[in-house]
Amino acid sequence: MQEVDEKARTAKEAARKLATVGTTVKNNALRAMSEALGDTRTAILDANARDLATAADKGVPVHMRDRLTLNEKRIAAMQEGLHQLIALPDPVGIVMGGWRRPNGLQINKVRVPLGVLGIIYESRPNVTVDAASLCLKAGNAVVLRGGSEAIHSNIALTNIIAQAAESAGVPEGTIALIENTDRAAARHLMTLNRYIDCLIPRGGAALIETVVKNATVPVIETGAGNCHIYVDASGNSDMAESILLNAKTQRPSVCNAAETLLVHRDHAGIHFARWISALQENGVEVRGCPRTLSVTHDYLHSQSGFRPITPATEEDYFTEFNDLIIAVKIVDSVDEAITHINHYGTRHSEAIITEDYAAAQKFTDEVDAAAVYVNASTRFTDGYEFGFGAEIGISNQKLHARGPMGLEELTTYKYIVRGEGQKR
Amino acid sequence: MQEVDEKARTAKEAARKLATVGTTVKNNALRAMSEALGDTRTAILDANARDLATAADKGVPVHMRDRLTLNEKRIAAMQEGLHQLIALPDPVGIVMGGWRRPNGLQINKVRVPLGVLGIIYESRPNVTVDAASLCLKAGNAVVLRGGSEAIHSNIALTNIIAQAAESAGVPEGTIALIENTDRAAARHLMTLNRYIDCLIPRGGAALIETVVKNATVPVIETGAGNCHIYVDASGNSDMAESILLNAKTQRPSVCNAAETLLVHRDHAGIHFARWISALQENGVEVRGCPRTLSVTHDYLHSQSGFRPITPATEEDYFTEFNDLIIAVKIVDSVDEAITHINHYGTRHSEAIITEDYAAAQKFTDEVDAAAVYVNASTRFTDGYEFGFGAEIGISNQKLHARGPMGLEELTTYKYIVRGEGQKR
Repeated sequence: MQEVDEKARTAKEAARKLATVGTTVKNNALRAMSEALGDTRTAILDANARDLATAADKGVPVHMRDRLTLNEKRIAAMQEGLHQLIALPDPVGIVMGGWRRPNGLQINKVRVPLGVLGIIYESRPNVTVDAASLCLKAGNAVVLRGGSEAIHSNIALTNIIAQAAESAGVPEGTIALIENTDRAAARHLMTLNRYIDCLIPRGGAALIETVVKNATVPVIETGAGNCHIYVDASGNSDMAESILLNAKTQRPSVCNAAETLLVHRDHAGIHFARWISALQENGVEVRGCPRTLSVTHDYLHSQSGFRPITPATEEDYFTEFNDLIIAVKIVDSVDEAITHINHYGTRHSEAIITEDYAAAQKFTDEVDAAAVYVNASTRFTDGYEFGFGAEIGISNQKLHARGPMGLEELTTYKYIVRGEGQKR
Repeated sequence: MQEVDEKARTAKEAARKLATVGTTVKNNALRAMSEALGDTRTAILDANARDLATAADKGVPVHMRDRLTLNEKRIAAMQEGLHQLIALPDPVGIVMGGWRRPNGLQINKVRVPLGVLGIIYESRPNVTVDAASLCLKAGNAVVLRGGSEAIHSNIALTNIIAQAAESAGVPEGTIALIENTDRAAARHLMTLNRYIDCLIPRGGAALIETVVKNATVPVIETGAGNCHIYVDASGNSDMAESILLNAKTQRPSVCNAAETLLVHRDHAGIHFARWISALQENGVEVRGCPRTLSVTHDYLHSQSGFRPITPATEEDYFTEFNDLIIAVKIVDSVDEAITHINHYGTRHSEAIITEDYAAAQKFTDEVDAAAVYVNASTRFTDGYEFGFGAEIGISNQKLHARGPMGLEELTTYKYIVRGEGQKR
């Protein structure tokens, strides 16, 4: 635990200094980090090869090993990410508002860094560079805790970027990695309220749950997305099909992909059956409510290469499949759709396809989610798509930040109050 | 636990409905609550008398019983608070920002209620009305959990205001009180992430620590304030004395009162000794560093009614006395003052008294606190003094809200994205 304590304490000291470091120094550091990654490619790939060999020995499945893999292209992508960050405006020091009180006090609300962020993540080693650089640009120190399977890659990457950042004038200890891969070390980090200002878990539902349960440090929950597409009675049929296919199949493993299709009963005819068929043609397994099964039965049986619909279970409606599977339900009204979404959803991204003004208003008013869409794919909930230029994750909690989190969401504010002797 | 589950679940349903209820209905509810409190004064005071009798039987100290006491004046104050809330603007529905993306998507960031707030508090029954009404105005349902010593008062108050609110059109279950005063009930509430969106503990350090340790629901920490006054080398001596006396003695029991005086060594002469003497004349016990003791020795001994200074311990510098006690330390520089504050402070409210531009800049830049003052008393960190018109508490955490929390801080936002068929 000594390693965790020491790195967290040093990070706190570094954060204090970094808070007043100017944008130029931070950008120079990001540039130096990119150059260092290029210069040390061989060492990085060697370290990564050790992790991959261990994973192969342990029989880790191929798709998990892919996440762990670094190559020239992925290193170039990290470098590209650093250069994009350089181009983004520095959020620190922005005066968010200010006013004069009747007693003459001038109150300014000023954006400042959060301080020290703890990032707890899984096997992707590129998170090491992405998270550290985002934290740095927003003026924060960072204590990283990656998965044990990527430990050699993470140590190599952290040493390289931390040294490069320090050589550019960033305080020592701004970027730190916990090298102890025991669970106890992560648990300890989660309770270091004195040094860590905020924890961001990046990974699957189990990781996030562990952090929420064990942390006393404030956590920003990210990730879980059980997103819905609701096709209203008035929804344009071609638009519904095109958005549905996009939201479900363009990248099914991500949190803003659709997991459930809700369809108004007035739309549950031939068009609906065609969408289901189109989903199936794109490799999607469809799990439907009883009405879905009966409504689509004749159409689907008339198609060549008939594929059956599985009956959907209650559990299916709660599930973020992250896969080519979709649950389908016919509903009687926009109200029923909203109730379903608020009950089964994870408050991430929800879309209505409609031509009806009142339905659009009701849906955007009453659906409780970070992003509510009218006639667009849920896949747009993303820092880049929103125009933030970078993203540390997508929050689906309500405190502090909701939806895509960019640089601004990695800051807090303080009030600077200037007086001339005022007292109460 | 059934009571907690049921009330929390009902509150969640109520919150969904309340989120779209207009300002007029909420204001009518606040007015009805005020009228009902007036009409049922006798019943409220009877219930309070039962709590007070129990407290007397148990030998609860007089100052604790004072907190528990309701009387005509305190009921009138609650009514006044309700009328002040009516006059405040409704934060819900404000468009905080919006932009058009290159693909035509229109993204609006809109202020919405948090949902269901859990308020865990101690013996003051007026918190029941204050917290419930603030939550209501911001569109939130609330589950209240007050101290067992105030249970009869809290039940009476909650029944009265909940009925009044419902009669004005607010959804049933919007205002609920957990009547089970067992600790287990409070603990259960702290883990109901499915129904409770945010917990706000209001009370002493022990209560807040219990909530932070046991909650899985996100918590907003309030309260702890170990605040400092730093008198810089260039600080105006009269201003220093006047702000110091105000910050320490005007209301020593509150979180924005000063607990430690730091003085630049260049100022540690006769003026300094006079401030110490003035503090003592105002009943303040002074605990000083060795230099403070030696510097003030001659002056204090020359005064009639000499009162000694106790040596300050390390622990004193960490302590929020909430009482007429102050720790004093002479420092060699503004840097040492800042380091001391960032080490011992609770990031609440910190003040510098200075005439020096660079010292003021350094202090406001580098002190890590919710509110940083130049030449003004720390006592201004308060929702009313900041002009918010109301206050649920003062956050000294960094996520979500920092410093005084008014109606706006009881809300979150959602992105409403309007398209015309966009997909990725």
